[in-house]
Amino acid sequence: MSLSTQPYKGARDFYPPEKRVQKYLFSVMRKVAESYGYEEYDAPIIEPIDIYLAKSSNEIVNEQTYAFDDRGGRKVTLRPEMTPTVSRMVAAQRQELAYPLRWYSIPNLWRYERPQRGRLREHWQLNVDIFGVTGLQAELEIIELANKLLLCYKATPDMYVIRINSRKLVEYILKDYFKFESDTVLKCIRLIDRKNKIENDEFKNLLVELTGEEKSVELQSVLEAVSLDSLPEDIKQHSSVNEVKDLLSLLARNGVENATFDITLMRGFDYYTDIVFEVFDNHPDNPRAMFGGGRYDGLVGLFGAEPVASVGFGMGDVTLLDFLIVHDLLPPVHSETDAYVVLVNEINDQTQQVITSLRDAGLNVAVDLSTRSVDSQLKTAIKKGIDFVVFIGAEEISSGQFTLKNLLTREETKASVADIVTTIKNNAQKQ
Amino acid sequence: MSLSTQPYKGARDFYPPEKRVQKYLFSVMRKVAESYGYEEYDAPIIEPIDIYLAKSSNEIVNEQTYAFDDRGGRKVTLRPEMTPTVSRMVAAQRQELAYPLRWYSIPNLWRYERPQRGRLREHWQLNVDIFGVTGLQAELEIIELANKLLLCYKATPDMYVIRINSRKLVEYILKDYFKFESDTVLKCIRLIDRKNKIENDEFKNLLVELTGEEKSVELQSVLEAVSLDSLPEDIKQHSSVNEVKDLLSLLARNGVENATFDITLMRGFDYYTDIVFEVFDNHPDNPRAMFGGGRYDGLVGLFGAEPVASVGFGMGDVTLLDFLIVHDLLPPVHSETDAYVVLVNEINDQTQQVITSLRDAGLNVAVDLSTRSVDSQLKTAIKKGIDFVVFIGAEEISSGQFTLKNLLTREETKASVADIVTTIKNNAQKQ
Repeated sequence: MSLSTQPYKGARDFYPPEKRVQKYLFSVMRKVAESYGYEEYDAPIIEPIDIYLAKSSNEIVNEQTYAFDDRGGRKVTLRPEMTPTVSRMVAAQRQELAYPLRWYSIPNLWRYERPQRGRLREHWQLNVDIFGVTGLQAELEIIELANKLLLCYKATPDMYVIRINSRKLVEYILKDYFKFESDTVLKCIRLIDRKNKIENDEFKNLLVELTGEEKSVELQSVLEAVSLDSLPEDIKQHSSVNEVKDLLSLLARNGVENATFDITLMRGFDYYTDIVFEVFDNHPDNPRAMFGGGRYDGLVGLFGAEPVASVGFGMGDVTLLDFLIVHDLLPPVHSETDAYVVLVNEINDQTQQVITSLRDAGLNVAVDLSTRSVDSQLKTAIKKGIDFVVFIGAEEISSGQFTLKNLLTREETKASVADIVTTIKNNAQKQ
Repeated sequence: MSLSTQPYKGARDFYPPEKRVQKYLFSVMRKVAESYGYEEYDAPIIEPIDIYLAKSSNEIVNEQTYAFDDRGGRKVTLRPEMTPTVSRMVAAQRQELAYPLRWYSIPNLWRYERPQRGRLREHWQLNVDIFGVTGLQAELEIIELANKLLLCYKATPDMYVIRINSRKLVEYILKDYFKFESDTVLKCIRLIDRKNKIENDEFKNLLVELTGEEKSVELQSVLEAVSLDSLPEDIKQHSSVNEVKDLLSLLARNGVENATFDITLMRGFDYYTDIVFEVFDNHPDNPRAMFGGGRYDGLVGLFGAEPVASVGFGMGDVTLLDFLIVHDLLPPVHSETDAYVVLVNEINDQTQQVITSLRDAGLNVAVDLSTRSVDSQLKTAIKKGIDFVVFIGAEEISSGQFTLKNLLTREETKASVADIVTTIKNNAQKQ
């Protein structure tokens, strides 16, 4: 019996065309993160399971981790998210690092879920975090950067909305205003987090179960507040309301036009402590949360170090790709290979010298070593999506003039090595 | 009790300075591979354990894999090497792909070993493979590319040697010349593979055990052949000897000066079928095999597809880094951040506008949001290793002239936004 050629279920093989798309996604991530002064870091894909037990969601740790015992009996898992890892790394060098610290990474993350649209068992996720800034300038920068990313992918502000909420406000409402027990508070947060994913009636029933008939009606009306101003007067007095207001105003003044308050926004993780945000796709075919983040000031402290003010977000490549496709924003990506050499005669040392000159001049050059007919070799170049073909044979070598064919325009010219280099480089600049 | 801040044993955290070094290593890999027309691919880090059972070494599969059962009961492992994966991917699209196929990847690989110099439990490994070329041109290109890589890291040919052998020749010697049983052949290959890692006496004793007193003496004298010409006459007649000779001559004529025949070179994996090679570090402090590869024509066929001629190599980042360090070849790597903004007064919308202009002009700019003294902010810039500091306060904004300080030369100038951009870009070009 032969072995299966399929990749592991819910995970992706990246053939060169798909890898090229991923390289485009990653290059924009790196460019934007670095333009804001963020430095790239990385860490092992294996982490001790302990670091997720305290503050990730229970659902993730108990049902979705790729957890196992290593050959030394250590309880480990493939990382399901990066925030505990980055907090561990900051804690390890808490005293030596220079704050504000700006770090980013594009790790591969794994969760055992039922594969579906926008959700696979693995994805690559841009993580951007700033450490050591207590004020709203941190939230402003992080959200501005997230917005800038989408603009750099050629999105326009009408395509998405940035929802903002405050965990402090939510806790105040549930704990102090409604006076729920802390267990009920947690369950309410989890239920509200699922509000947009379940039917309205189901949500109502579950809320009644949790909070009783009377309070559930009142809580629902609070959750229907469309703006900070439409919150009940007592709630509006809370300091977190002003904080959200200030952030929205800062964002508007700094070019982020489409941020809005959303009292129902929770974000799944238990470690968020204050402002949370989420970027939501407005497209009717893909109405879903794309990515988000927030402030999580307590996490570094779990590793025995003094806590550090921390704000960040994570953006996955799978949801990003869905967004770009549904809005028709994915640019054509070209082959990395500039020219394909078709061999008219057998390859020899002189042929190799010509090819080496082309490479030394900075061109990426593949050679057809199949010893098939010129026509078959040409068809291979077309199939590979390479723009230029150079024909090399004994005659070409003795004259120093090669046939250069542009496969897009079908134009053919006689050209020296220097001419070939110039033509192909000029063409690349035009693209 | 607080959580440990250490990374998983035998694996590495990459803080920004180490990540910068890795980015340099990877960028040279990508540049050289693409210059030869290789296209990047990738695949999930999890694979079914099955694909390693047939042709990887038993030691790896039974003792060194990170194997586990997933939540659906599938027997999987973190990939210990990339060759079975790339063979699986080629098999899956055997008919649709255009040959010769040139692919490369830089996957993260995991093996449960005792961590030691040059060997961790994880590494990143450049894999370069060409598919569909039966002749020696494939070996020439792959070895030439490996050699080019080292040259691009500024190595000189005296620093390393490229050892070449033929699995066909080894099998002919053991099976046909010495007439060993196939089990003994396999054990001999494994033993010879360890020859340089164990004491000479131990090797002799083990060889006697395997082959008997008389044949072991003769085999040892064959293994001491320093060149193709010093092999016994009967062996020299075998076609594989001419093949190695042709390859060495092709390499020499194409600029690879330091390739040499080595009858004791085996390479661990069972899937090699013909030419194998290995790059060996000549440095007295690091005398070890750095990386290698060879021809493995049968592997794609294990996945139920028609076999494809395949030649490739894998080069790990840990051994590469050891090589570059021991030969003092690692260049200084600069921060990705071009300028650090020190805030003389509180940040406001006008400050943000200046910073945005600097970013829009293509500079990577970090801002000190700590609200500490100017002096403390300056010290932070120095600690981060950023070359330029821009001081922004109310006065600077109203005059449009900012103090720009070069932290390397300690030079200070008054400069407009445009001047800042020009100065920093000119400086970057000089580096």
